[in-house]
Amino acid sequence: EHQETSKPAKVQELSVYEINERDRGSPAYLRLSQKSTNSLGDLVPFSNKLYSGNLEKRLGITSGLCILIQHEPEKKGDRYEAIYSFYFGDYGHIAVQGPYLTYQDTYLAVTGGSGIFEGVSGQVKLQQLVFPFKLFYTFYLKGIPDLPADLLGKPVEPSPSVEPSPAAKATESHACLPNFTN
Amino acid sequence: EHQETSKPAKVQELSVYEINERDRGSPAYLRLSQKSTNSLGDLVPFSNKLYSGNLEKRLGITSGLCILIQHEPEKKGDRYEAIYSFYFGDYGHIAVQGPYLTYQDTYLAVTGGSGIFEGVSGQVKLQQLVFPFKLFYTFYLKGIPDLPADLLGKPVEPSPSVEPSPAAKATESHACLPNFTN
Amino acid sequence: EHQETSKPAKVQELSVYEINERDRGSPAYLRLSQKSTNSLGDLVPFSNKLYSGNLEKRLGITSGLCILIQHEPEKKGDRYEAIYSFYFGDYGHIAVQGPYLTYQDTYLAVTGGSGIFEGVSGQVKLQQLVFPFKLFYTFYLKGIPDLPADLLGKPVEPSPSVEPSPAAKATESHACLPNFTN
Repeated sequence: EHQETSKPAKVQELSVYEINERDRGSPAYLRLSQKSTNSLGDLVPFSNKLYSGNLEKRLGITSGLCILIQHEPEKKGDRYEAIYSFYFGDYGHIAVQGPYLTYQDTYLAVTGGSGIFEGVSGQVKLQQLVFPFKLFYTFYLKGIPDLPADLLGKPVEPSPSVEPSPAAKATESHACLPNFTN
Repeated sequence: EHQETSKPAKVQELSVYEINERDRGSPAYLRLSQKSTNSLGDLVPFSNKLYSGNLEKRLGITSGLCILIQHEPEKKGDRYEAIYSFYFGDYGHIAVQGPYLTYQDTYLAVTGGSGIFEGVSGQVKLQQLVFPFKLFYTFYLKGIPDLPADLLGKPVEPSPSVEPSPAAKATESHACLPNFTN
Repeated sequence: EHQETSKPAKVQELSVYEINERDRGSPAYLRLSQKSTNSLGDLVPFSNKLYSGNLEKRLGITSGLCILIQHEPEKKGDRYEAIYSFYFGDYGHIAVQGPYLTYQDTYLAVTGGSGIFEGVSGQVKLQQLVFPFKLFYTFYLKGIPDLPADLLGKPVEPSPSVEPSPAAKATESHACLPNFTN
């Protein structure tokens, strides 16, 4: 009956930027459909860099797979099923699954995590800023201890022109998570 | 100690039909094993239509990937590892992972969700009615608020001959979820 | 506030061995990158055998997909994103997602389960003993009832030379889970 009282009430927000700096050979668009337009059958493994919401720290990487589901010409875009993880160096990782639409913001499911994210649940909002190179995510996380301060700086307002701080981009040690994933 | 009291006690059942109406170019059987029989190495991206258990409403779509694990000649079928999502228009989605056997009912894990399914856990029973075109699912969901009424009509008894209502098939607005996924 | 009190406090450990006995046609290394070194774009479906931590019982299989993310020459290895399940016969399955590094132990997220693992959360430590043929896992599981005794024997200390008992390897009935997955 009192279902709500039995779940961790607290939702913690976590903002991150995913940026493709074109130096990881990503994405790998596998045109396995053998069709001339993006079609079901195409697969897109990818891995990009991950920065804190305030763009002051390099956190790690994303890595996973986008499955092309449908080309939507009237929306000038594509629907993908996305299955990937966000890596935060020694802090661990968060796994997600859900829709990636090239023309619209979406929410994905948080399916689990490791390290400080062990046992996490919730969802994450995906906002595309520059297709397919710059994305902003807001996680809504439940079931985990308080997040550490170095993940929690005030996020920079998302816009197409945002850039990581030079120190974070250069992975200077004060501008990276401990053993940031690379 | 009293582990049970700390979990959401309530399990909510949700029944849906997944139907391949052969108009989405699905599935895409990628014979990457390059063998003449289905073999490990083959991948099968897919996306089908999703209807309510009472077959009166078009809900959305499924989308994801089946990974051929083993051809089982003695069972005249195949074992797949299936990773996919169920989309319910504005209500959000449910992500699942587990076994898909072409010759037997199975249970898959519910790994997470978005929207009204944010934070969901549980499992789902997969019953195949017409291979590979018509499937019936019963979700057993925990950790979420009460499901909305338009997902909860009394399910039609699963059988190979079931069909969605003409209105749902034609996606008439009264026979669809708000902004049903397509 | 009292977040901790609202979660199942109990963590249950479960140890298993994953062994590639080279009789399942696994892994299928799909060199879809079309590059001469392992590169983003390569996909590796796989399925191996699963034994209890004490090596006295055949449990079932693993099955899923490794996504090559990065070849790391300085570490003489590769980073994969791994998405797979552990099958335990009639007991059900556990789904996981996370990093598989060929040169280092990692933790993956437990994303869900079925059967006795319905509603599970937590993480799993992956220890590689003989690349890529022998791995040892320690699951840390929450939110499920007490595990059955036949999964809980004292684990054999992981080392490259461990082998399943002859009875388990021969799948004699007393050395297998009920309806062990094969």
